[in-house]
Amino acid sequence: MASPFDLLITNADVVTASDRFSTDIGIRDGKIVALGRHLGEAGRTVDASGLLTLPGGVDAHCHLDQPMEFGLRMADDFTSGTRSAACGGTTTVIPFAAQMKGQSLRAAVEDYHRRAEGKACVDYAFHMIVSDPTPRVLSEELPALIREGYTSFKIYMTYDDLKLNDRQILEVLDVARREGALVMVHAENSDCISWLTDRLVAEGNTAPRYHAVSRPQAVEREATHRAITFSELVDVPILIVHVSGSEAIEQIRWAHGRGQRIYAETCPQYLYLTAEDLGHEGYEGAKCVCSPPPRDQQNQEAVWRALAHNVFSVFSSDHAPFSYDDAQGKKLNGKEQKFQYIPNGIPGLETRLPLLFSGGVASGRISLHQFVALTSTQPAKLYGLYPRKGSIMIGADADIALWDRDLEVRISNDRLHHAVDYTPYEGRTVTGWPVMTFSRGRLVSQDFEFLGRAGEGEFMPCGQPIL
Amino acid sequence: MASPFDLLITNADVVTASDRFSTDIGIRDGKIVALGRHLGEAGRTVDASGLLTLPGGVDAHCHLDQPMEFGLRMADDFTSGTRSAACGGTTTVIPFAAQMKGQSLRAAVEDYHRRAEGKACVDYAFHMIVSDPTPRVLSEELPALIREGYTSFKIYMTYDDLKLNDRQILEVLDVARREGALVMVHAENSDCISWLTDRLVAEGNTAPRYHAVSRPQAVEREATHRAITFSELVDVPILIVHVSGSEAIEQIRWAHGRGQRIYAETCPQYLYLTAEDLGHEGYEGAKCVCSPPPRDQQNQEAVWRALAHNVFSVFSSDHAPFSYDDAQGKKLNGKEQKFQYIPNGIPGLETRLPLLFSGGVASGRISLHQFVALTSTQPAKLYGLYPRKGSIMIGADADIALWDRDLEVRISNDRLHHAVDYTPYEGRTVTGWPVMTFSRGRLVSQDFEFLGRAGEGEFMPCGQPIL
Amino acid sequence: MASPFDLLITNADVVTASDRFSTDIGIRDGKIVALGRHLGEAGRTVDASGLLTLPGGVDAHCHLDQPMEFGLRMADDFTSGTRSAACGGTTTVIPFAAQMKGQSLRAAVEDYHRRAEGKACVDYAFHMIVSDPTPRVLSEELPALIREGYTSFKIYMTYDDLKLNDRQILEVLDVARREGALVMVHAENSDCISWLTDRLVAEGNTAPRYHAVSRPQAVEREATHRAITFSELVDVPILIVHVSGSEAIEQIRWAHGRGQRIYAETCPQYLYLTAEDLGHEGYEGAKCVCSPPPRDQQNQEAVWRALAHNVFSVFSSDHAPFSYDDAQGKKLNGKEQKFQYIPNGIPGLETRLPLLFSGGVASGRISLHQFVALTSTQPAKLYGLYPRKGSIMIGADADIALWDRDLEVRISNDRLHHAVDYTPYEGRTVTGWPVMTFSRGRLVSQDFEFLGRAGEGEFMPCGQPIL
Amino acid sequence: MASPFDLLITNADVVTASDRFSTDIGIRDGKIVALGRHLGEAGRTVDASGLLTLPGGVDAHCHLDQPMEFGLRMADDFTSGTRSAACGGTTTVIPFAAQMKGQSLRAAVEDYHRRAEGKACVDYAFHMIVSDPTPRVLSEELPALIREGYTSFKIYMTYDDLKLNDRQILEVLDVARREGALVMVHAENSDCISWLTDRLVAEGNTAPRYHAVSRPQAVEREATHRAITFSELVDVPILIVHVSGSEAIEQIRWAHGRGQRIYAETCPQYLYLTAEDLGHEGYEGAKCVCSPPPRDQQNQEAVWRALAHNVFSVFSSDHAPFSYDDAQGKKLNGKEQKFQYIPNGIPGLETRLPLLFSGGVASGRISLHQFVALTSTQPAKLYGLYPRKGSIMIGADADIALWDRDLEVRISNDRLHHAVDYTPYEGRTVTGWPVMTFSRGRLVSQDFEFLGRAGEGEFMPCGQPIL
Repeated sequence: MASPFDLLITNADVVTASDRFSTDIGIRDGKIVALGRHLGEAGRTVDASGLLTLPGGVDAHCHLDQPMEFGLRMADDFTSGTRSAACGGTTTVIPFAAQMKGQSLRAAVEDYHRRAEGKACVDYAFHMIVSDPTPRVLSEELPALIREGYTSFKIYMTYDDLKLNDRQILEVLDVARREGALVMVHAENSDCISWLTDRLVAEGNTAPRYHAVSRPQAVEREATHRAITFSELVDVPILIVHVSGSEAIEQIRWAHGRGQRIYAETCPQYLYLTAEDLGHEGYEGAKCVCSPPPRDQQNQEAVWRALAHNVFSVFSSDHAPFSYDDAQGKKLNGKEQKFQYIPNGIPGLETRLPLLFSGGVASGRISLHQFVALTSTQPAKLYGLYPRKGSIMIGADADIALWDRDLEVRISNDRLHHAVDYTPYEGRTVTGWPVMTFSRGRLVSQDFEFLGRAGEGEFMPCGQPIL
Repeated sequence: MASPFDLLITNADVVTASDRFSTDIGIRDGKIVALGRHLGEAGRTVDASGLLTLPGGVDAHCHLDQPMEFGLRMADDFTSGTRSAACGGTTTVIPFAAQMKGQSLRAAVEDYHRRAEGKACVDYAFHMIVSDPTPRVLSEELPALIREGYTSFKIYMTYDDLKLNDRQILEVLDVARREGALVMVHAENSDCISWLTDRLVAEGNTAPRYHAVSRPQAVEREATHRAITFSELVDVPILIVHVSGSEAIEQIRWAHGRGQRIYAETCPQYLYLTAEDLGHEGYEGAKCVCSPPPRDQQNQEAVWRALAHNVFSVFSSDHAPFSYDDAQGKKLNGKEQKFQYIPNGIPGLETRLPLLFSGGVASGRISLHQFVALTSTQPAKLYGLYPRKGSIMIGADADIALWDRDLEVRISNDRLHHAVDYTPYEGRTVTGWPVMTFSRGRLVSQDFEFLGRAGEGEFMPCGQPIL
Repeated sequence: MASPFDLLITNADVVTASDRFSTDIGIRDGKIVALGRHLGEAGRTVDASGLLTLPGGVDAHCHLDQPMEFGLRMADDFTSGTRSAACGGTTTVIPFAAQMKGQSLRAAVEDYHRRAEGKACVDYAFHMIVSDPTPRVLSEELPALIREGYTSFKIYMTYDDLKLNDRQILEVLDVARREGALVMVHAENSDCISWLTDRLVAEGNTAPRYHAVSRPQAVEREATHRAITFSELVDVPILIVHVSGSEAIEQIRWAHGRGQRIYAETCPQYLYLTAEDLGHEGYEGAKCVCSPPPRDQQNQEAVWRALAHNVFSVFSSDHAPFSYDDAQGKKLNGKEQKFQYIPNGIPGLETRLPLLFSGGVASGRISLHQFVALTSTQPAKLYGLYPRKGSIMIGADADIALWDRDLEVRISNDRLHHAVDYTPYEGRTVTGWPVMTFSRGRLVSQDFEFLGRAGEGEFMPCGQPIL
Repeated sequence: MASPFDLLITNADVVTASDRFSTDIGIRDGKIVALGRHLGEAGRTVDASGLLTLPGGVDAHCHLDQPMEFGLRMADDFTSGTRSAACGGTTTVIPFAAQMKGQSLRAAVEDYHRRAEGKACVDYAFHMIVSDPTPRVLSEELPALIREGYTSFKIYMTYDDLKLNDRQILEVLDVARREGALVMVHAENSDCISWLTDRLVAEGNTAPRYHAVSRPQAVEREATHRAITFSELVDVPILIVHVSGSEAIEQIRWAHGRGQRIYAETCPQYLYLTAEDLGHEGYEGAKCVCSPPPRDQQNQEAVWRALAHNVFSVFSSDHAPFSYDDAQGKKLNGKEQKFQYIPNGIPGLETRLPLLFSGGVASGRISLHQFVALTSTQPAKLYGLYPRKGSIMIGADADIALWDRDLEVRISNDRLHHAVDYTPYEGRTVTGWPVMTFSRGRLVSQDFEFLGRAGEGEFMPCGQPIL
């Protein structure tokens, strides 16, 4: 008689967002089909003794091969990006199909499918970016695409080529309310940034570090308060992405106290980097230019505290891969840029989980359950991939990461698998690393080595958010 | 020997923003020149026994004869407006010279001088309204006009023909910072109002009461938070006008706790009217349509509480005189309007002080000193009219109101002196009324009768705000 | 071959604190040993199709057969209490071994064991109540008992025979910090209550409803703030029990914002009763006398909102069983009492879960996962019973409740299984009821009928809190 | 004809709590009787040109010749204390008649009158300290004494020989409500301090600097919250004395937002000293030991911010004069004490006003009006001395200080007039000093020289607080 399982993970110390138990895991056809002891024979058996068995990560905020303007090019396509994800314990990515102004939203989605087709190493879904909410987009394209499995989309309150005005945001939120989609909001006040930027430039202050000066917390806090107001008026939940510090957190907690459903995300850069990392001299600081910018140590602590107290639902990388020494990247056109022209974003798909694990779980700031919730279960639920993704349970995809919680790893770009030529975390040592990653039961990485294959990752249409 | 005084007020129970004392008051050439007992002879002697002797009111937010579009016309010009003010104990008004888009700011000021010339019954100064901050306005007109005595101006975050965008507000605040002017902010989010209005109209909800529905507190709160952010970024104090309820108050108190200098004003309508007064049927509710709209009783209490705890610096009327049964007023073009077309504003110059006195002082909610501070001293200081106006002291203008604190008065439009055909407070009984009002030593009203003369009021250039 | 399972629950729609999945559940020797489909034969099979399969409830705050003074007697002993629990879907209770002043803590624990011995129908553990923290208690008894499995204890800030002073509380918390125990705090200011009570009594206001007047929210809020301060000074987490309304919630949220680990519990009475239920005339209101007292509808909403936003970790009954028509109960000594003498407490073991399910899950205010977390997983973790209790997973006790989520049930004391002669929820209709309850694999209740047996419930020593 | 004035101050630049005006001031029989120009002849004329003319200070919190236990003795009696006050621009002091446990309150007041009799150089009133609120004190002595002119009293929440328990505080507040008195509260949690102290002592940490460690902000914040709760329950205003930092301020602002009338006082030590000043080695730090202890720079800024935003009503010295090198002072019994035995308190009567003027007015943090309000007008009102004291106006006592706002003065104990052997501000330079001080028209100090005479100061019974 054939073995009932393709793969058996034995002696698993399984952690979910709420539970922890010892079991063997029986996997067939890429799915978890049995939990218990003594499950019998399997095609392959992996002994997980001494390791933690966690659901594979869901990186719900990353940018891959996104079409760019001005000669810019993202260093990672779906292959290098998802390869890097797999090696960092992430088994699902949700990058963005970005509408350009004037473009049909469906065209953006279709174009993005072509970019992903046959290239992904782990499963993926799409958020959309809505930058041009024409009547046709609002009344036809968005509703249709939401029903087809694109149930979340991001809007911007800043960046000239992407930002919506207040009226447009209200209209977009109203569609989300009617159709049951979740809107992600990049909350920074555009006019404030442009006014501050012009002043800095006029004063000759154009080094990378002025990027942080041009986007103080007040600018993020204001937009956060405004987005919360829109959510209240339209009566629809929203998710504030990449929250950077105490001032935006204060607004989100205030909204929670009033009973509003405001979800929030933060990222490793707000736990590990500060504005100091944008440098005092030279151009190296461009490596850490992202928006909102990293703040200071006090704000790092505020973000940790908010993580511990469940202010955040999602922890993402906001991977935005621009190489440093690259005429299509941070040194666009072969030169060092004034801060206002430096492409925004830093790489982080592969380091996201170890950074949170080390500073959070290993340091005792958050529980293992919070780690799983933030990195896998909650993004899977909020973006409609649950119960297929996000946990270890009967019926779920066998997306599993085995973690050595004591392994000390010195982060070095040499050992990472993305196509970016640097990591902002170079030289930092973390405790804990995912030593084996399974994507639907296939071993896709082991001990810093990629073992998967482009094209094995599948597109997943998303269901309605589970809020 | 000639008497040293033109007028002697004897047995005065004088109240200032901080003090209270018994004295005679010697007045010469329109100024207070002596305090003490037994001051000797005078051309005229008034015995103030049994009355309170308060500084005349400064109404720092009122609209008179402001040029309007669409066939609208304000019912009060400088004569009827200031006559009404005098009879309500107010001896200084500061209406608005409003720039229209495309218009030069100086032209607006000059036009407004022509409208006031020879017509005012009490002294007046001008705020400006900046609706079109062109480079020329920002770099030339505003600085010059500020130096010439127009040291405060209002900006709007709503109303299509007046509103500034965020960038413009920052630029205008920056001029105020450099030149030492005070910016008054009408804080409501324009896009939210238009979105809510369109929804209401689409649903056929166009009765006057939907005016309040279209401008909920969240809309005011959001704009207040945003304005506070701009003040923080530019590092300049601002004044939020006509605060209507607890949500905006919460933001202002939050800013105070952070050390920001955010000044605030409220008005009688937020103490005495509610959204219910906009009516359930018919068009009568149009009489109470103003922006922000009156809220509910709980918010009235919140405003009273904030007055008692010095959250507000200024108490104004926001007198905006549109007659009800008037084809150039609330029934524009002879018909009852949908809420979105009803001219915004209610009359209140004459009732401002008695309403605050009655509900505040007589009811024990605020002290006499707070009354004087809110209605006279602080507006005089903030708008640069102090020490000429705002108190009873040596050297000040003899702008004095004698109050009978026990007089019960039933408010009726018949007895008021404005040119508007209604008062929203018709039939209400107040306790306390200014029975004699002196403007620079001239008796301009007594026992509900106007005794002054058009043209006796003078224009006063304003000095720098005393913050 | 013998069946591997004693019991098989098939087609289970399992919900945990974070997950939901379809599975069969294999149970052997009272434990969950297999999850998956097609698990084979079993001694008994129950088809759970159409029902929700939830972990059995853990009622972490209930009083059973607690020795009382003054002739009072609790109506429920371990048998009637746990029978009632079972019929309401609760499979674990944690009542209190209460130290009397002068008594050794160990003696209290031993006495309580005797009361439970052979009587419980479901499993149980003990909290202790520390009312006399002598040096011996602090240095010997408490540490020893904590290590023996009594890892949580309650302290009172009110009630003359139980309350600790501030110094004692600090000392007790310090032991908890050193030994890893969790302290539960009854937070009401004793002196305030006694002062208010004396005034009410002096004025002749002694009807049951004055109970609520004698313990306003301020009294609870103050003690909550004070307890939070003690937790901060000693640097140890605490849990505030039976939080009744918005003012204590505000303090708890404030502490969370500062990063403090303050856990909190609420109870059905604060969601369903108000001070009105204490009555206007007669003595019926005595049925709803508990401390803190129920508040009003606005506070009910505040508690719901806090439940939805995870301010609370635990939802308990605070079952305190005094019969109404009982000379050892609410009518102590055969007469109607003045409010200050009415025994405090209401019954609720059996109705706890349906009330939260109905008003929370069925009404859409909280998720199924929050329901499970609040009623089972989190109390099991905080009080050291996890992973044996609190979830449905491999290795856990087969404490399972099958819920008919659509069943409408009119609550009536006739159908309840406690020994109290009333329920404060008489006549209310709830949606959702646990139609089968398993305690370690034994069916102990079905369709409102108790099927278990006294003595089948076991004592469980508690491990360290999982915070 | 005799001159109408005993004294004429000409060219006075008068500042009150709200106003500023130029005038001559006519004084007769110790009172201000005329304001205006050209007032004629006077017995003596002082030209105030170039100086500020402010009301003399009211120091509403100072300890003079208070009977002490344990061999302690205050260095200042009424003569040296009021001499020092006069030289620092203060013309009224309100020290404490302190009841000892077991003592009649009236006896304490009578004893204190004996200590003051014929010794004071400026006017004085008494607060009482209630440490033993027996039924007789509550029902007879307190009401009678309040009516006789002792309308304010202080209670302590800490210090074993002074503290009241919660019940006593409520009863005392209730008397204050009925009789219209104002209760001043020393808010620190006694048990927390004793618990922390015992731990420090047990660890051998007894240097002066551990005084600050034993009384962290949380201890003050908790008691402040508790006192606010008592005020709410009894419905009577209270005044929190010597607020030291941001945490207590947060509570007070929170109470204000809720509409409560909570008054607050702060002192120079919280603006100029920090816990660092308690020293790292040696015993010098004992000079700065007071309670609450000074905090850190961030808290100094918080106190300044709160002063600027009118959170405080009163600025006092809390002068508690213990000499450093004194066997009846800081080195009690001739030896250096462990922190818990160091007498609490620092001298400050003479430096109070210059310190606030320099850091507040000269540095632009507060206005001249706020300075006058905090140091003179508001204490005079709150403690029932207004209108006799607290302002410059017709009818008031001629208590006047002429300030040279530009004078730079290096503080040195050599130049001070108290009997204490040190000042904690030694060596600091301030800008602004009162160069002439008049007490009821008598010049009592000029240019750092005392010109008055013991016995010229009078006792003033206090009227009801003006709140």
